[in-house]
Amino acid sequence: MILLSSSGLWAFSTLIGASGVWALWPIPASLETGTSALTLPSSFTVDVAVPNAPWDLVQAVAQTQSYLENDKLGRLVVGRGANDSNAIQNGTPLSGLKLTLAEGSQVSSISSEAVKPLGNRSEEYTLIIPQDGSQATLTANSTLGLYRGLTTFTQLWYYYDGVIYTLLSPIKIVDKPAYSYRGFALDTARNYFPVPDLTRTLDAMSWVKLNMFHWHITDSQSFPLQVSLYPELADNGAYSPKEVYSESDVQYIVSYAAARGIDVLLEIDTPGHTAVIGTSYPDYVACLDASPWATYANEPPAGQLRFAVPEVVNFAASLLSSIAQNLVSKYFSTGGDELNTNCYVNDTVTQQQLNHTGMTLNAALNTFTQATHGALIAQGKTPVVWEEMVLNWNLTLSNETIVMVWISSADAAAVVEKGFRIVQAPSDYFYLVSSLHPVLSVTTTLNQQDCGAGAWLGNDSAGNSWCDPFKTWSESYTFDPLANLTEAQYPLVLGGEQLLWTEQSGPQNLDPIVWPRAASSAEIFWSARQPSGAPLNVSEALPRLQDIRYRMVQRGVNAIQLQPQWCALRPHACDLDA
Amino acid sequence: MILLSSSGLWAFSTLIGASGVWALWPIPASLETGTSALTLPSSFTVDVAVPNAPWDLVQAVAQTQSYLENDKLGRLVVGRGANDSNAIQNGTPLSGLKLTLAEGSQVSSISSEAVKPLGNRSEEYTLIIPQDGSQATLTANSTLGLYRGLTTFTQLWYYYDGVIYTLLSPIKIVDKPAYSYRGFALDTARNYFPVPDLTRTLDAMSWVKLNMFHWHITDSQSFPLQVSLYPELADNGAYSPKEVYSESDVQYIVSYAAARGIDVLLEIDTPGHTAVIGTSYPDYVACLDASPWATYANEPPAGQLRFAVPEVVNFAASLLSSIAQNLVSKYFSTGGDELNTNCYVNDTVTQQQLNHTGMTLNAALNTFTQATHGALIAQGKTPVVWEEMVLNWNLTLSNETIVMVWISSADAAAVVEKGFRIVQAPSDYFYLVSSLHPVLSVTTTLNQQDCGAGAWLGNDSAGNSWCDPFKTWSESYTFDPLANLTEAQYPLVLGGEQLLWTEQSGPQNLDPIVWPRAASSAEIFWSARQPSGAPLNVSEALPRLQDIRYRMVQRGVNAIQLQPQWCALRPHACDLDA
Repeated sequence: MILLSSSGLWAFSTLIGASGVWALWPIPASLETGTSALTLPSSFTVDVAVPNAPWDLVQAVAQTQSYLENDKLGRLVVGRGANDSNAIQNGTPLSGLKLTLAEGSQVSSISSEAVKPLGNRSEEYTLIIPQDGSQATLTANSTLGLYRGLTTFTQLWYYYDGVIYTLLSPIKIVDKPAYSYRGFALDTARNYFPVPDLTRTLDAMSWVKLNMFHWHITDSQSFPLQVSLYPELADNGAYSPKEVYSESDVQYIVSYAAARGIDVLLEIDTPGHTAVIGTSYPDYVACLDASPWATYANEPPAGQLRFAVPEVVNFAASLLSSIAQNLVSKYFSTGGDELNTNCYVNDTVTQQQLNHTGMTLNAALNTFTQATHGALIAQGKTPVVWEEMVLNWNLTLSNETIVMVWISSADAAAVVEKGFRIVQAPSDYFYLVSSLHPVLSVTTTLNQQDCGAGAWLGNDSAGNSWCDPFKTWSESYTFDPLANLTEAQYPLVLGGEQLLWTEQSGPQNLDPIVWPRAASSAEIFWSARQPSGAPLNVSEALPRLQDIRYRMVQRGVNAIQLQPQWCALRPHACDLDA
Repeated sequence: MILLSSSGLWAFSTLIGASGVWALWPIPASLETGTSALTLPSSFTVDVAVPNAPWDLVQAVAQTQSYLENDKLGRLVVGRGANDSNAIQNGTPLSGLKLTLAEGSQVSSISSEAVKPLGNRSEEYTLIIPQDGSQATLTANSTLGLYRGLTTFTQLWYYYDGVIYTLLSPIKIVDKPAYSYRGFALDTARNYFPVPDLTRTLDAMSWVKLNMFHWHITDSQSFPLQVSLYPELADNGAYSPKEVYSESDVQYIVSYAAARGIDVLLEIDTPGHTAVIGTSYPDYVACLDASPWATYANEPPAGQLRFAVPEVVNFAASLLSSIAQNLVSKYFSTGGDELNTNCYVNDTVTQQQLNHTGMTLNAALNTFTQATHGALIAQGKTPVVWEEMVLNWNLTLSNETIVMVWISSADAAAVVEKGFRIVQAPSDYFYLVSSLHPVLSVTTTLNQQDCGAGAWLGNDSAGNSWCDPFKTWSESYTFDPLANLTEAQYPLVLGGEQLLWTEQSGPQNLDPIVWPRAASSAEIFWSARQPSGAPLNVSEALPRLQDIRYRMVQRGVNAIQLQPQWCALRPHACDLDA
């Protein structure tokens, strides 16, 4: 229907019946749809034709059915589906969905598949939904693949006046991810997030097929992780006795995640970002609570591990390995970002140690890193580090080490040049909020830090607000994971993640600040391109992102409004050039 | 206790027992405190020594007691009050609080006092809390003043290990607001907010003594307000049948607000911002849904009332007065911002009308405005408009008209020059989120628009994000309401408000995006200065803002984290220069 206004100007047009594929996020690798209506009757069943179906697959099917029944999402058009009534009434009831594994597939749990080494996880699936109401089929090579397919299946259905329906049949989807690492990083140290916030975040991640939860669990401000070998760390370092993660909490999170196809990458950032350890071991920490903090740290409080001291080396290696040994993940991050050298220049203990051994600071860091990484590798873990460990220091790192590129998207090439696999976490695209204040006296390249929430330090008001603009979903969405790389280097890009540093966030704003923005990277790293092969396009994407945003809200995740609802109901009517 | 780190550097110091006055926001006009501990025993009673105490005062007392019992806010220091144990154990139980009105005071309800003309409301109070446990006294000249005092009283108390206490007695507070208009504006048209979101917002407003709820209830995108004389407006213009405000909803909000000392200023923005009226009266609207919208509007959809047409003039006057007649407030806003003249230049109907009457567009706007304002004035209402009605057009407005200055803080002087009373709503300080995209082809002065959430239009990604940084609480806090004005003009500044435009907000992020930032203006316009007479200071203020932020969370308002909790527990430790 094309609306003519009285002034004679053409208004935007809406095509009757064209529901498009707005619900799918991330967009599948290959997608064929029709225009026939199907409904989901109460008799719709899911047939799990998988022998000895693992418990987490059974749970996933139940959760799928729950989403199908409860999403009750009205299609994002004016009238929310009222105009679909005719189509719905003439729609064909879909009898059921049958899940099968391809011949020769191993029947193992979603949870076990999810924590395999990154290249080994099978996430592909084929979903076929005929238009005649006969049983739809979902096939995959693993239960994890089936899980991904179920996730897609739930995104197809709308609700109007008691009927669950789609207007898109017949549907054929053949799908698989472009990248194996598709993450979301959360900092639970600057501010604490109770376990239900984490499980809800994992749910939302699973809806957009994110598969790596990068848990930045400790930092200078707090140490909420209970470690049985070192109970004092949380006793002294957590914000309060309630604001902790017990070992059971961690196991629960890991288990909850794995059942949703998500691997948990725990990070204990070292040797910087460790002031809080000084509340238990003041001797282990240089420049502890030093003032002015800006001389010794990127943000208060100052304090970094005395990594030149053998006892500290042993402590760190013991701490990290005692944590890692309880984790099923193959990956463990030791962090390594933003090491402030002033801190050590002025530290008598460190200087004495370096003089005594004749080592440079760099050599001492190398010894420290070899110890911590060595301990992790001995446990079968692959270490993960921030880019400075490769770009700012001369360290001997295992070839297997995965490097997170964050300072700017340009650094990816520099790291890849050295032969390391990388995860793209660029602050200029993927930081949901800034973590840092660009302390002018510290030599950093933080000027391009994502921000958008203004300075959080005290006594630092107006005018001086330095932060770059908030990174909208569409700015993140334009990120090119392969920029500046040669084709031969492409395989070294494992994927990427968006990150929430929580100096200015907490449970109160977790959902709206993360969602749906963090879905941008979900599509960049699953889909990478449109099904046609065309590059991802913000104009094409927005209606689909709106859909997943509204569906998230239906499912209890408080995703933020991206636009006036008027715009959400009229795809493209609020485009810049509409 | 002063901490010495091993490196010999001085760490920050904490003074035992110095709890300061961090809890009070806005800071009272005059404040004397001591260092003696008082506790609130279960036998604590509030004696309402007011004859025929109005129902809303009785409710306020009950709500006060509820806050006292349930806030359970641990003092914002390391240990959350554990170090106060000794003081608490030696604390004196406070027997009660007596409320009285000064002799000669009229006993009327909070609700009736709250909606008096702005200069006539009595909000002052005196609160005296002796250190010996004898009855505290709260006196005022009105029940509204008592309400303000009760609000302050609830901010004094902390909780540790089962005991409610303060460390500040004896306390003497003599308090009154510097400005009569202290507001918060919410746009419920770009996105809809259910009534509970509004009542919760009113509660939070009351906790910081905000007294004007500026309800921007309709706009181009939706018309959620049910008007009995024009039911089609909401029938066709609301986002859905559920996303409406019935007349009862409005009355409930007005009543709920008034009982909390808040007057509701409703705004029906005209003649711009009215595209949605075209869904019922297409003939009344020029450039309805015109494309490209950017030629005809600041944001989509385009559409503005044909104010040159007599039938439209009558309609608007009738609409506004039919709404206003049901409202107790003395104030009603007709809006009048961002009128796009292209819209009328190209509108045949408008041009024909102007030719027919020989009027200019300006003259027609004058006729329109005289009609709408005339109708409101006839009902005893004072019209409120946006600054363009005074600065961009040559209109005959009543001297009583209140003008909201928003484009930039510099325009205040220009408006005041013309003799109008103003409300400060500057986008460069007080916009919590941007409302607009700086459409380059439209001549506006919006470049300094507060933003921070990036562009919300579609097809408008990265790099082009034009928005200025997000306005932090401290940037807002540095606003000077009297800048560029002569002392003789000061009385024309009624006060100010912070504003949430909701193109990119909804119920999901309402609390964290508004609070505690909107408390900045609450202090600017209640306190204006520190009790000492010194100007407001962001360094001094932050610990108190943190306190009210944490208290808001205890009371069920999801105020955002301003800093890492580590900083909240160590006032000034995270200052820029700490």
